[in-house]
Amino acid sequence: MKRIPYKTYLPEEKLPQMWYNVRADMSEQPDPMIHPGTHEPMTLEQIAPIFVEELCRQELDDTTRYIDIPGEVMDYYKTYRPSPLCRAYHLEKALDTPAKIYYKFEGNNTSGSHKLNSAIAQAYYAKQQGLEFLSTETGAGQWGTALSMACAFMGLDLRVYMVKGSMQQKPYRKTVMETYGAGVIASPSDTTQVGRKILDENPGTIGSLGCAISEAIEAAMGKGDSCRYALGSVLNHVLLHQSIVGLEAKAAMEMLEEYPDVVIGCAGGGSNLGGMMSPFIQDRLLGRRSPVFIAVEPSSCPSLTRGRYSYDFGDTGCTTPLLKMYTIGSCYIPHPNHAGGLRFHGMSPILSKLRHNGIIEARAVPQKSVFEAAALFAKYETILPAPESSHAIRVVIDEALRCKEASEAKTILFSLSGTGYFDMTAYNSYLDGSMTDYIPTDEDLEASFATLPNV
Amino acid sequence: MKRIPYKTYLPEEKLPQMWYNVRADMSEQPDPMIHPGTHEPMTLEQIAPIFVEELCRQELDDTTRYIDIPGEVMDYYKTYRPSPLCRAYHLEKALDTPAKIYYKFEGNNTSGSHKLNSAIAQAYYAKQQGLEFLSTETGAGQWGTALSMACAFMGLDLRVYMVKGSMQQKPYRKTVMETYGAGVIASPSDTTQVGRKILDENPGTIGSLGCAISEAIEAAMGKGDSCRYALGSVLNHVLLHQSIVGLEAKAAMEMLEEYPDVVIGCAGGGSNLGGMMSPFIQDRLLGRRSPVFIAVEPSSCPSLTRGRYSYDFGDTGCTTPLLKMYTIGSCYIPHPNHAGGLRFHGMSPILSKLRHNGIIEARAVPQKSVFEAAALFAKYETILPAPESSHAIRVVIDEALRCKEASEAKTILFSLSGTGYFDMTAYNSYLDGSMTDYIPTDEDLEASFATLPNV
Repeated sequence: MKRIPYKTYLPEEKLPQMWYNVRADMSEQPDPMIHPGTHEPMTLEQIAPIFVEELCRQELDDTTRYIDIPGEVMDYYKTYRPSPLCRAYHLEKALDTPAKIYYKFEGNNTSGSHKLNSAIAQAYYAKQQGLEFLSTETGAGQWGTALSMACAFMGLDLRVYMVKGSMQQKPYRKTVMETYGAGVIASPSDTTQVGRKILDENPGTIGSLGCAISEAIEAAMGKGDSCRYALGSVLNHVLLHQSIVGLEAKAAMEMLEEYPDVVIGCAGGGSNLGGMMSPFIQDRLLGRRSPVFIAVEPSSCPSLTRGRYSYDFGDTGCTTPLLKMYTIGSCYIPHPNHAGGLRFHGMSPILSKLRHNGIIEARAVPQKSVFEAAALFAKYETILPAPESSHAIRVVIDEALRCKEASEAKTILFSLSGTGYFDMTAYNSYLDGSMTDYIPTDEDLEASFATLPNV
Repeated sequence: MKRIPYKTYLPEEKLPQMWYNVRADMSEQPDPMIHPGTHEPMTLEQIAPIFVEELCRQELDDTTRYIDIPGEVMDYYKTYRPSPLCRAYHLEKALDTPAKIYYKFEGNNTSGSHKLNSAIAQAYYAKQQGLEFLSTETGAGQWGTALSMACAFMGLDLRVYMVKGSMQQKPYRKTVMETYGAGVIASPSDTTQVGRKILDENPGTIGSLGCAISEAIEAAMGKGDSCRYALGSVLNHVLLHQSIVGLEAKAAMEMLEEYPDVVIGCAGGGSNLGGMMSPFIQDRLLGRRSPVFIAVEPSSCPSLTRGRYSYDFGDTGCTTPLLKMYTIGSCYIPHPNHAGGLRFHGMSPILSKLRHNGIIEARAVPQKSVFEAAALFAKYETILPAPESSHAIRVVIDEALRCKEASEAKTILFSLSGTGYFDMTAYNSYLDGSMTDYIPTDEDLEASFATLPNV
């Protein structure tokens, strides 16, 4: 029998040269982004003042199956890609499972996650358009770091609105971004109208991703034509760029003559999940294979498992176009005890549609069980995982133990989307026993659903 | 012309299966470790109560050229090795240099550095000997993290004495070690006699590596036969394990049909430097090739450039055997403004001998210029480097610029021994302008030399 190595790297000449656009293979398209006033689908002209123009084109393009990765982006990718496809031999042994566990590890770059895959693409197109400045938000900090790195490389200025709670938990993330030349502001802040309004209404708030998005958009719009806003998840063009993760994983598995029975990923806004899954989803959409897809989200922010499939704003300030997605309401602010990322109230419209159509399953897991899984993984696979990614690890371990009970040698693939090196406050609260689980009540969610726009 | 990829990984089946012991090829051996009382060479029986027995054998073995890497250690190596050999195309372009710059990147594991290469070997042999407990010290934190990871994997208990100044600068390092189950104590502490004595004499001290070593040895000796002390640098057996770095680098360069004209590494205790250089030093010792070797140390702790080649203690408490090495005196405590690692007063006896015999050159660089180089590297090569490794980067950039002036297309190889993710306090002081350079005066060093033992 062929010996599978612990780690498989695609050779440079086999790196994917094109991103994959899963919409081109979906027989039923996600509902379009619509204008909050008219409820008409947004046009290129309407969104181009917010986002980089080429990204707007990609956002609206639901027919082009493969899109060339520009040469400069490829050259940057090659400084940290391919990421390894790893076989979790030690974890398998520790769990005494017949399952074969593979993970695609995206944490081996300074952003600490997969986020850099879209950041460098976005900065590149911004530069091509002649822009000088981008603004964005960051929650856990990976996206802000990634875009800081990309903007430094491309010579663009960047302002990052960082969720205040995250900044308190991860002060060093700010310094990393500043080392790459970005300006970093705790959100909500007094630098925007929407920030001041939120602070007035709720002075003690630790913020949310939705709120930081509102501020970053306002900041970009205020700067005129040299500036645009950049988003690190949720949107179609972000999932497009992140398809590099799944394309590499699939090519590496092909080299090993392997194919996953189950693909697992953590679900925040959907960029990691969509990036990893979409090339495998293609197989399912085209009837070639039928792997199971499991999206894992925190019990404290359960958009896919307890949310409504509904049009909603992408931000707390209700300034974005409306997206059709699973959402727990744009006013929902996750409980402050919730560690790390995965704090977004909604979910990528593409993944929401796939979930709605039964292609993707979803599970919610409480955070103490997530950190328990993280510590076990760290011990045996040596990598200290990000709290976000550890949601996936929790379900991988559960699945592997189920395989043991059933004596089933399933092949499990998951995305280890990042490392936890800047999340030690959260690990600390797990270790010292102060971490608690929080699950919103039905009443909490109903109250939030009541604020959904009437479309 | 053959296209060199950005990153080269050895395939798993080509990983080195043996460590290389450079002493076997040195016509003149380093002077032996001697007893501080009798000045006689230490015997296996004398050092075995301190260190794991197999490591003692390796320490004293100056004839076996290659030593098999045990299977369990190889299996662990494969979770994070091979490390990539990277071509710094973007940095070369930014510097507009004809030089070819390669770096071996050892930071892609959770310890953040090469330290894991020896940690897992030491934990393995401890386990084989039936030990239950190890003690060690850590300065910058990488070694402590590495040994925590290794002990967790092998099922051993670990106590880490962490230099107090480092713990203040890097609080999250402690949490990482605790996540892997280690007990972490700020040094000097009141848990040991030597710690209490140092605190009595100098209550405000932020500690030093030499002081933490004294405490860790005392702690190990107090635990009797189930416990030994482990050291992450300086000693011969550590350099032996770290040869994996240079062996992989050399094999990867051979695949590319390349060979370095200059090999550069940062110098603390010598584990990174010796590990990277020794397989290339072999070529020089055997007259096969004659690359230039440059060890780079901080101006604030200049053992190789301004120290004495003399017998000295390895620790502040004067409890270790005496080592013949370049030293600025075991009582020397680096200025508190000095960021990161490379705070050890001495240097590996092997490297000291090679330096003494003119095989290795040495340079000292001030820290602001080091962080300037680090920020430039981060921008173009995307990796945020450890302050320690950035000393090497400073000299690499200087050499590359010299190549530009001279229109010389030299091939430069350096070890990027680690990442700076836990060093953001130091980066912050660089960014906010509060970082200063400190260079000890000749009088400072003379005062320290006066305390050298009389051998």
